[in-house]
Amino acid sequence: MAATPIIIDCDPGQDDAVMLLMALAVPDQLDILGITAVAGNVPLALTQRNTRLMCELAGRMDARVFAGCSRPMVRDLITAEAVHGRTGIDGYDIHDPAVPLEPQHAVDFIVDTLMAADDNSITLVPTGPLTNIGLAIVKEPLIVPRIKEIVLMGGAMREGGNTSPSAEFNILVDPHAAHVVFTCGRPITAMSLDVTHLALTTKERLEAVGAIDNKVAQAVHSMLEFYDRHDIEKYGTDGGPLHDPCTIAYLLKPELFQGKHVHVAVDIHSERTMGETCVDYWRVTGEAPNTNWIHSIDADGFYALLNDCLRALG
Amino acid sequence: MAATPIIIDCDPGQDDAVMLLMALAVPDQLDILGITAVAGNVPLALTQRNTRLMCELAGRMDARVFAGCSRPMVRDLITAEAVHGRTGIDGYDIHDPAVPLEPQHAVDFIVDTLMAADDNSITLVPTGPLTNIGLAIVKEPLIVPRIKEIVLMGGAMREGGNTSPSAEFNILVDPHAAHVVFTCGRPITAMSLDVTHLALTTKERLEAVGAIDNKVAQAVHSMLEFYDRHDIEKYGTDGGPLHDPCTIAYLLKPELFQGKHVHVAVDIHSERTMGETCVDYWRVTGEAPNTNWIHSIDADGFYALLNDCLRALG
Amino acid sequence: MAATPIIIDCDPGQDDAVMLLMALAVPDQLDILGITAVAGNVPLALTQRNTRLMCELAGRMDARVFAGCSRPMVRDLITAEAVHGRTGIDGYDIHDPAVPLEPQHAVDFIVDTLMAADDNSITLVPTGPLTNIGLAIVKEPLIVPRIKEIVLMGGAMREGGNTSPSAEFNILVDPHAAHVVFTCGRPITAMSLDVTHLALTTKERLEAVGAIDNKVAQAVHSMLEFYDRHDIEKYGTDGGPLHDPCTIAYLLKPELFQGKHVHVAVDIHSERTMGETCVDYWRVTGEAPNTNWIHSIDADGFYALLNDCLRALG
Amino acid sequence: MAATPIIIDCDPGQDDAVMLLMALAVPDQLDILGITAVAGNVPLALTQRNTRLMCELAGRMDARVFAGCSRPMVRDLITAEAVHGRTGIDGYDIHDPAVPLEPQHAVDFIVDTLMAADDNSITLVPTGPLTNIGLAIVKEPLIVPRIKEIVLMGGAMREGGNTSPSAEFNILVDPHAAHVVFTCGRPITAMSLDVTHLALTTKERLEAVGAIDNKVAQAVHSMLEFYDRHDIEKYGTDGGPLHDPCTIAYLLKPELFQGKHVHVAVDIHSERTMGETCVDYWRVTGEAPNTNWIHSIDADGFYALLNDCLRALG
Repeated sequence: MAATPIIIDCDPGQDDAVMLLMALAVPDQLDILGITAVAGNVPLALTQRNTRLMCELAGRMDARVFAGCSRPMVRDLITAEAVHGRTGIDGYDIHDPAVPLEPQHAVDFIVDTLMAADDNSITLVPTGPLTNIGLAIVKEPLIVPRIKEIVLMGGAMREGGNTSPSAEFNILVDPHAAHVVFTCGRPITAMSLDVTHLALTTKERLEAVGAIDNKVAQAVHSMLEFYDRHDIEKYGTDGGPLHDPCTIAYLLKPELFQGKHVHVAVDIHSERTMGETCVDYWRVTGEAPNTNWIHSIDADGFYALLNDCLRALG
Repeated sequence: MAATPIIIDCDPGQDDAVMLLMALAVPDQLDILGITAVAGNVPLALTQRNTRLMCELAGRMDARVFAGCSRPMVRDLITAEAVHGRTGIDGYDIHDPAVPLEPQHAVDFIVDTLMAADDNSITLVPTGPLTNIGLAIVKEPLIVPRIKEIVLMGGAMREGGNTSPSAEFNILVDPHAAHVVFTCGRPITAMSLDVTHLALTTKERLEAVGAIDNKVAQAVHSMLEFYDRHDIEKYGTDGGPLHDPCTIAYLLKPELFQGKHVHVAVDIHSERTMGETCVDYWRVTGEAPNTNWIHSIDADGFYALLNDCLRALG
Repeated sequence: MAATPIIIDCDPGQDDAVMLLMALAVPDQLDILGITAVAGNVPLALTQRNTRLMCELAGRMDARVFAGCSRPMVRDLITAEAVHGRTGIDGYDIHDPAVPLEPQHAVDFIVDTLMAADDNSITLVPTGPLTNIGLAIVKEPLIVPRIKEIVLMGGAMREGGNTSPSAEFNILVDPHAAHVVFTCGRPITAMSLDVTHLALTTKERLEAVGAIDNKVAQAVHSMLEFYDRHDIEKYGTDGGPLHDPCTIAYLLKPELFQGKHVHVAVDIHSERTMGETCVDYWRVTGEAPNTNWIHSIDADGFYALLNDCLRALG
Repeated sequence: MAATPIIIDCDPGQDDAVMLLMALAVPDQLDILGITAVAGNVPLALTQRNTRLMCELAGRMDARVFAGCSRPMVRDLITAEAVHGRTGIDGYDIHDPAVPLEPQHAVDFIVDTLMAADDNSITLVPTGPLTNIGLAIVKEPLIVPRIKEIVLMGGAMREGGNTSPSAEFNILVDPHAAHVVFTCGRPITAMSLDVTHLALTTKERLEAVGAIDNKVAQAVHSMLEFYDRHDIEKYGTDGGPLHDPCTIAYLLKPELFQGKHVHVAVDIHSERTMGETCVDYWRVTGEAPNTNWIHSIDADGFYALLNDCLRALG
């Protein structure tokens, strides 16, 4: 079977970093057309650098990395250094990445790539605020039918928000872009906190990563050791939720996940609920489902898959 | 120990009816100063009648029942005949109740009763839209310190809304009154869908009620047989959530429940999220907890308690 | 012709005070059934006292004054001491008023009076936040058909807001009550800033008041000398807008005013535009007119009428 | 003095068309770097065509015209065929324009042109929804300091809205882009309905245009004869407001206008007031002025200037 053509859009972030490494590990399964960076967990200058660092770490010097938007569509940028550290990937040894930054703007790369593609052909994998995707859709709405699917990390229902009582970070940072994406009409699979809070970096799972004897796995182990401290304190769990890699795991092994097809809308009217993903879980509105809302995960299978990928990068 | 002085405010509704019967069954534990009716599940003319019917059924001809507000504070009334039937208590044999309606307006009864009481002395038990309570607070803010606690049925977090994707019925019907109540400064215990969806009227539980050989239990059995049909279809569960009686059960046996002290605010700005209880479950805002948000229940213990009450009314 | 039966609802405030004096001066034209006070320009304890002081000043010891709500329906109270001074009627010699406070709550007075009246029989004249009126309507919706007309001071379109960029003080203090009133279905005549800013207390007009040799006129002169300082600085005009008396002038001489029948709605969703009167002046919505939006005034005729009233109180 | 370098962004519309002709008539005063079209009065395919038709009519075959966004940033597009006719410039003889469409996207043209310019050097003149400008700022925030000034047509305060009770068409179509523009930090001069409703196409003024014996003036006369019909009926005036040309007139003869420096914010939270320009006219907030809010015009001088321009194109 041919590799699935995807565009990854991210804001590393340790969990984005792990997501990238997973995706870069399976070139026979995922054909990464480009990786676009966006402001989110940390400012754009750091997210695009961190993206290139991960490509270098994976030995994928051929990866094409594009910098996108440095601010959300409408609101002021908020970042999450409290979670990720000042570099975004604290725990990793930061240096100037050998992988260069492409000169094209991420939004233009997304538009041009999709406009050159067939209908229903490219999967988008956004794991940060949806600014780049949203802006691309507004700049050129004709890209929409070319999108096959959008597999994103974002949102929350059962778990409540992690940044406001009602909203998850990625959606809260750019709720207007999220609105554009959730109303675009293409199939969406959402890895929300409802599922990522079931994919915790427990001590045993971290140890299993640390037991893999290659530099990629060791780097992941180091980043995740930093990463989960904040969340363990916040949630009282024995590990942090490994959000973004769920998207790649779903592309590789969808059978690890279970979801429900529902309508999801994003609140953009109330400051209190801004960025909430309003999930019509019990179908009380008449609106047609637009999202496969993932609610369950085989977490051990997920971590086994992660380790397979890390070993493949050794 | 002296019976706890309470005012019940309700909109029967079959689950309000069962709540009333539970409360009326234990005069040594609950001193019901009055029962106020409000528009909600069905219009006021029906909720006050249904309230009186339940007092009569319980043999409590001395119960004082007051009619309150026939419309919410700001929005137009919505009702829930699809759930409860046209009478509000379909499944029960409706007739003119022998228990009379007090001439005083419910809001005035609430104000006068509290103004005549000591500080921190009376528990309010609202199981419908919070219009009567909210209006009483606005009419006479000095009642607030007299309230000991508010044990209410309303809201949702984990379960999502049952009337909109974000909002539970009672709060959505009068979100502004709910805002007044949740900001009043007195301790609140909230029985939201998060807990009531764990208190299902399974076949076995209904049979246990039906096995109690008195007319009250038989009436409850008949009402609940009507009541759970809608919810079984909606949620795909093997029973309907018995919402309102959780409040009385909590007053009688708090050890059946577990909660977390959190800040809860009500959205009144966005049409999409109107009436959402925004639960700061992970304490991401700096706001002080105002609510004991109940999330767990010993459901078998709860139904055993219900049956005890029903037997006591025989 | 029989005197018009009215209920005045106010929050004095110097301009409310002048409004009261005008109304109290013409018992053959206006049958004041009662005067209700509400929190607004200053807290309730001061507005009800100031109301009684004005009745005393007018020699109307028979006036019935009722205290109403001390807080708005949903929002926290804001007051306007910067405009009116700490007493609400700075410029007047404050003392304990000889006119007593009625024991009944203003909301109950309004409800009882209207419920005892014929349909379409009593005119309401609110010149403060609409809390008392709104609460009365929610408490007993059956009062609505008894209302003949509501002649209120509040709102703004052409002039912009005086308390926020979009909202006038009275409506902003209790936008939810204003929503209840503007959606109640009875005819409304609105004296907004669009007209009151055309009724300025110029030097000549103040001098004309001062030239009336009785204690009421002298008191009015003294209050208005304090009152217009703030507005002259704010608006750069040569006098302050004499808001509230426009309502009474309209009842006495409607030919002094010109308006347009339009639909008015109150924003209660956005913090930025909260309390804005959204005037469909150009009929771009399909909604039926609910308000006679006064936009023009014969200001000299208005001040002549004021002076006539003041002379009558001499 | 060197010609002022400007970028015009428009959605013709007859009044945009007249604006373009005025601007194209004075190459020694205005150096039009490019003209970008946006969806607004009619869809993008028509606005870019109409823009090119006007360039051709003005004999400016060298004009560079770029097509931009076909939809607003967040909301669905609304158009105004009821005002402008199906072509957008009904009254003009539509044909395939000789002036070609540049292949570059308008947003990229705006970004590239500004990024190549000095700080504080280029004036933007948007007379349609602000989507192109807003998207350019989000795509590349570094363009902002390069902007010298933004002279736009949009908004309303005194006049109320023309599309909703609170909002003017251009701002309502893309309130989020307007929010981005009004918060960008560069000086804004706003030609709102408050001034454009003072620049009416009276019979005399139209006759004066018609008396100019060249094809451009005749075309303008023909378009304006169609254009003002809708507004004359709507506003009861003896002419339609000639909105967009006020921007060019301001650049050529600022002495024709008077304004006040105020803070303007755009509501993006309430459906009712969506797109309202909240003008802090009386400085009741502490926010620093960001806009020269034009409120007065020498209308005869404005029409004389228009006629001068039309003669120059003959």
